[in-house]
Amino acid sequence: MRQICIPALIVVGAFAAYAAERPPSVILNLEKSPHAKLRNVPVSAVKISEGLWAERRKINVEKSIPTLLELLEQNGIVDNFRRLSGRKDVPRRGPLYTDSDLYKWMEAVAFVLQSEDRPDLRANFDRLTDEILAAQEPSGYLNTWYVEDRKALRWKEQERGHELYCLGHMLQAAIAYYRATGNRKLLDGGIKFVDYLLRDFGPDKQPLLAGHPEIELALVELYRVTGNRQHLDLAGYILRGDGERLKLRPQQLVYMFSGKPFTQRTIMEGHAVRAAYATSGATDYYIETGDAEYRRTLNRLWNDMVTSKMYITGGIGSRAAGEAFGDPYELPNARAYTESCAAIANLMWNWRMLAAAGEAKYADVIELALHNSINSGMSLEGTLYCYRNPLELTAEAAKGIRNPWYSTTCCPPNLERTFASLPGLYYSTSRDGLYVHLYGPNEMNWKLEDGTPLKVKQDTRYPWDGTVDLTVNPAAAKEFTIHVRIPEWAEAAEVQVGGRRIAGPVKAGEYIPIKRRWAPGDTVRIALDMKPRAIKSHPRVVDNQGRVAIMRGPIVYALEQHDQPAGVDVFDTFFKLSADPAKDFTAEFRKDLLGGVVVLRHRGLSATRPASGLSLYEPVQSFDYKGGKPADLVLIPYYTFLNRGPAAMQVWTLYQK
Amino acid sequence: MRQICIPALIVVGAFAAYAAERPPSVILNLEKSPHAKLRNVPVSAVKISEGLWAERRKINVEKSIPTLLELLEQNGIVDNFRRLSGRKDVPRRGPLYTDSDLYKWMEAVAFVLQSEDRPDLRANFDRLTDEILAAQEPSGYLNTWYVEDRKALRWKEQERGHELYCLGHMLQAAIAYYRATGNRKLLDGGIKFVDYLLRDFGPDKQPLLAGHPEIELALVELYRVTGNRQHLDLAGYILRGDGERLKLRPQQLVYMFSGKPFTQRTIMEGHAVRAAYATSGATDYYIETGDAEYRRTLNRLWNDMVTSKMYITGGIGSRAAGEAFGDPYELPNARAYTESCAAIANLMWNWRMLAAAGEAKYADVIELALHNSINSGMSLEGTLYCYRNPLELTAEAAKGIRNPWYSTTCCPPNLERTFASLPGLYYSTSRDGLYVHLYGPNEMNWKLEDGTPLKVKQDTRYPWDGTVDLTVNPAAAKEFTIHVRIPEWAEAAEVQVGGRRIAGPVKAGEYIPIKRRWAPGDTVRIALDMKPRAIKSHPRVVDNQGRVAIMRGPIVYALEQHDQPAGVDVFDTFFKLSADPAKDFTAEFRKDLLGGVVVLRHRGLSATRPASGLSLYEPVQSFDYKGGKPADLVLIPYYTFLNRGPAAMQVWTLYQK
Repeated sequence: MRQICIPALIVVGAFAAYAAERPPSVILNLEKSPHAKLRNVPVSAVKISEGLWAERRKINVEKSIPTLLELLEQNGIVDNFRRLSGRKDVPRRGPLYTDSDLYKWMEAVAFVLQSEDRPDLRANFDRLTDEILAAQEPSGYLNTWYVEDRKALRWKEQERGHELYCLGHMLQAAIAYYRATGNRKLLDGGIKFVDYLLRDFGPDKQPLLAGHPEIELALVELYRVTGNRQHLDLAGYILRGDGERLKLRPQQLVYMFSGKPFTQRTIMEGHAVRAAYATSGATDYYIETGDAEYRRTLNRLWNDMVTSKMYITGGIGSRAAGEAFGDPYELPNARAYTESCAAIANLMWNWRMLAAAGEAKYADVIELALHNSINSGMSLEGTLYCYRNPLELTAEAAKGIRNPWYSTTCCPPNLERTFASLPGLYYSTSRDGLYVHLYGPNEMNWKLEDGTPLKVKQDTRYPWDGTVDLTVNPAAAKEFTIHVRIPEWAEAAEVQVGGRRIAGPVKAGEYIPIKRRWAPGDTVRIALDMKPRAIKSHPRVVDNQGRVAIMRGPIVYALEQHDQPAGVDVFDTFFKLSADPAKDFTAEFRKDLLGGVVVLRHRGLSATRPASGLSLYEPVQSFDYKGGKPADLVLIPYYTFLNRGPAAMQVWTLYQK
Repeated sequence: MRQICIPALIVVGAFAAYAAERPPSVILNLEKSPHAKLRNVPVSAVKISEGLWAERRKINVEKSIPTLLELLEQNGIVDNFRRLSGRKDVPRRGPLYTDSDLYKWMEAVAFVLQSEDRPDLRANFDRLTDEILAAQEPSGYLNTWYVEDRKALRWKEQERGHELYCLGHMLQAAIAYYRATGNRKLLDGGIKFVDYLLRDFGPDKQPLLAGHPEIELALVELYRVTGNRQHLDLAGYILRGDGERLKLRPQQLVYMFSGKPFTQRTIMEGHAVRAAYATSGATDYYIETGDAEYRRTLNRLWNDMVTSKMYITGGIGSRAAGEAFGDPYELPNARAYTESCAAIANLMWNWRMLAAAGEAKYADVIELALHNSINSGMSLEGTLYCYRNPLELTAEAAKGIRNPWYSTTCCPPNLERTFASLPGLYYSTSRDGLYVHLYGPNEMNWKLEDGTPLKVKQDTRYPWDGTVDLTVNPAAAKEFTIHVRIPEWAEAAEVQVGGRRIAGPVKAGEYIPIKRRWAPGDTVRIALDMKPRAIKSHPRVVDNQGRVAIMRGPIVYALEQHDQPAGVDVFDTFFKLSADPAKDFTAEFRKDLLGGVVVLRHRGLSATRPASGLSLYEPVQSFDYKGGKPADLVLIPYYTFLNRGPAAMQVWTLYQK
């Protein structure tokens, strides 16, 4: 018996090890993370069945992802690998970070595969993995730029080289694919490169710098896959920053948001994507280490951003120069940079802060960025992308905003991976039960942390309607807590369980814990007041002086020229606001328009004397610019702007009382 | 007799030739310019006797000019020449255009010498001329950057090389000195360099590009000295632009404002100083050639600038990125770039447009820029300079604004040469008489174009008071016209001759021609309404929405924190405007303050709830930011900001009615 049993035990042990090693298809695997308050629910466990996000995700898989691969091929991004393996004799094309564009596309595919099996996409991923690994050097080094004549420059120009950045995206794609399929070929290639780094770089070896942060969060996630502490430590070393040995200038440390100890940061500054990838990685690092200095720094940086540097759309990064954060309250509209990648980085960071703290304010930012500044980044047909997402556009300026391709094509695959991984953002588990972060029609089929199988279904027309009906189906009746999120924007909200209002306050901007013995078929209704809101911004935001932006639910609205009466210039319109602005706007669902959206109708005003007739400067007493003519205005969701040809558009609009 | 007479005639002839060759010490010598409507009055012919500009000019000569030479020496700018002549063995220092900084300083000295003989300055100029020419190569080439290892790069990187730019400033200095002293040593050096250009460059030879326009206006002025048509033609060739042969990219043509035919320009764009130097040179070229395409282009560009791209201070160049003009109405306050050199270039261009057209609108811009955006560029003590002249500053941002030295130290000597040449801007002659452009205490001792000696004296406390008393003293009674300028800002104005109001309309923004038989001692009184004005800007200037700027006469006012009551934050103030804003502000001359200025007192408001307590975004109905508390505010002339230590400052202020 014993002799027979041993091999069987070994097999079981091996399988157990494999199962432990191949966790569910989560975005972040926080199962063993000591400082995670919340844990991810797998992408595969949530089906988004209909509505806005089902539609966006369908387009993403059917149009965006396939056409972008064609463009990556056409632009030589895959050939950059083939030339190194000798499979093609072509010159290298594109800027030095193009490898990452392909990796990000592959990560998008991997997340699609976590939701549904698509053999075509799987085949593409495997084929690309083969192309990529054929270009990997025996040492583990892999990069299509620093080769041949430029080989001597490896690690010599880390402040711009993007070597670690590309590796980070390779690791993210590899991990997502491994979690989707169990196939660890690309992952092993990535680990081989990391092993190369561990050999030659570190505090007592050669210095290493995240010229563009990204590697940090990838290494922490790799640690969550491998359990190899060296992977976490390498992330920590990079976050501490080795800029002194590399003799970097202070301005470089600002721009890169790396190179000096992360815990010495006090403000969000420099390149917005770099900064928010760095804070994302630092949050991951905190979740594993519990380092209180990190937590303090992260809170401080987060407060700095949301109180003075974030657009109403959830976008970040005000300045084109350096693609950077501006000064506090520097939030220009027409010249907003608000890169799609920066909004995504904002979401990524908040997803990690939410996991660490379980506070609804982070989910508020996620919902805001997702529905607006990220959502705007991809056209409704799924083949045009914004790099910039400005909040005001002339028809002329609009011409350059949505494009199928960018030589720096970071945003398109970033949008694709975000849409593909979206199901993973709706829920989290906690020790005491379940958190519901996002609303929208979907079904979750997962389990509580104690292993109890649990299904939750959301019936709702959210974000167009504020009523969300949850049906809760634990495998068997059981006491636990469901934390339902009341968005910060909800001026009124009600929560019913089994048709009866719950006791206790229902506060906006918080999770409402509903602790009870949940039985299969139990229902929860969350009713959020969707009345339109006219929002003012801080007086120091000079662009918004005298203006309001209209929101309804999580959706920011905009005036686009297409929808206004003939002769009414968007830039010459005024809202006419009463004491209760909610009553000044009428919501109407338009199935036929822009993929089906709620538009807002408003009896506003247009200028008696258009601005085009005014001087640059004139005495206040002769200055004559106000809304004198009634005008029936129509507002569309901001994210749908520029889907009907170039036209003037603005979010922040002048108003009169 | 005949034998005796001939040599005498020769002597007379030689003297006449010399006299013709060495014209009066004007800024622009338009004596023979076929398309000049107005001609310059020499700097030497106008004495600014007292008041604001006498004070500024005194500091300029006594403090600014001497201390800047010390700094130029300390920073190796003169040594850059000495090392080439072997007089010093030191490395070259500073950016590639430093030669021009020295030349501009020398031009300032030359203009001082046009006003008064200062042997110390003359000696310095001669000494520097010697240092410079000792570094000139036998070919005529002269530049301290493109030497030794960089010699091979001469004319190879004209888009950034500044070789012609430096030559242009050398010529301007040389011409001004020649006109001041008759000494043409530096001028001959400059001509030698021009001869070198004429030999090797041009349409059928090597291409030439004004990577930074400046050479164009210098060459036209050189033509006015030499009468050598080749000098004018070379300017014309450069203005037509040879960018195609140099394979320049469209963005370079925008940035440099050169390289393509000047007459193809339609908007002011790109680097502001480059653009306005180019338009200055093009205006000079028009004045000599009468090319109608140039005239049309210049008018179009000027309109583009003054209707959408000029600050209320006369500053230009909105963007730090590329030191560039922005889009129409892109006129941010805190982030205004408004380089001192750009305001000076604006003045230079308008001085030429005024000469060409004789229209008061150009003098309006000159007066505006001079009193505000240029005037602000030098501290009251004369030793600190602004590179940027923003219209709003936090105390923190203020710390970097006034400095004694910049590695690119173009602005300090540019301010110095402008102040030094100022007497040349007060008057012009015309075929029919005299134009009076600027007001202020001064005496002119010159002549009409027919040779009649004419003295004019201005008694006034302008710009602090609007009454200007002219005393007109022709050598003998004579009929001619005096054109007195009624500034565009004058809401009311009166002109009296001999104590009696003239017949006919007195319109703001025009020259009022007073044609009569002028007898010695005749008087003219110009009374301009100096009541304070609250100015609005075009609604598309987003920074100024809901705000006004206060002006009095040509002076723009600002709120600086120093002058406000304790606890009243400049950024939380509101003006309280009645139907007649002039009555809301009280003017008071403060002899002791900021060199003697009129301040404005205003019973305004401060915010009930300071902005620091407000959220980034909140519903309009709960938004609470308005002036609720009366506050006695004091406004100072904008140009005096930041002369009492770093403090918050703003020009455009929120207002309530």
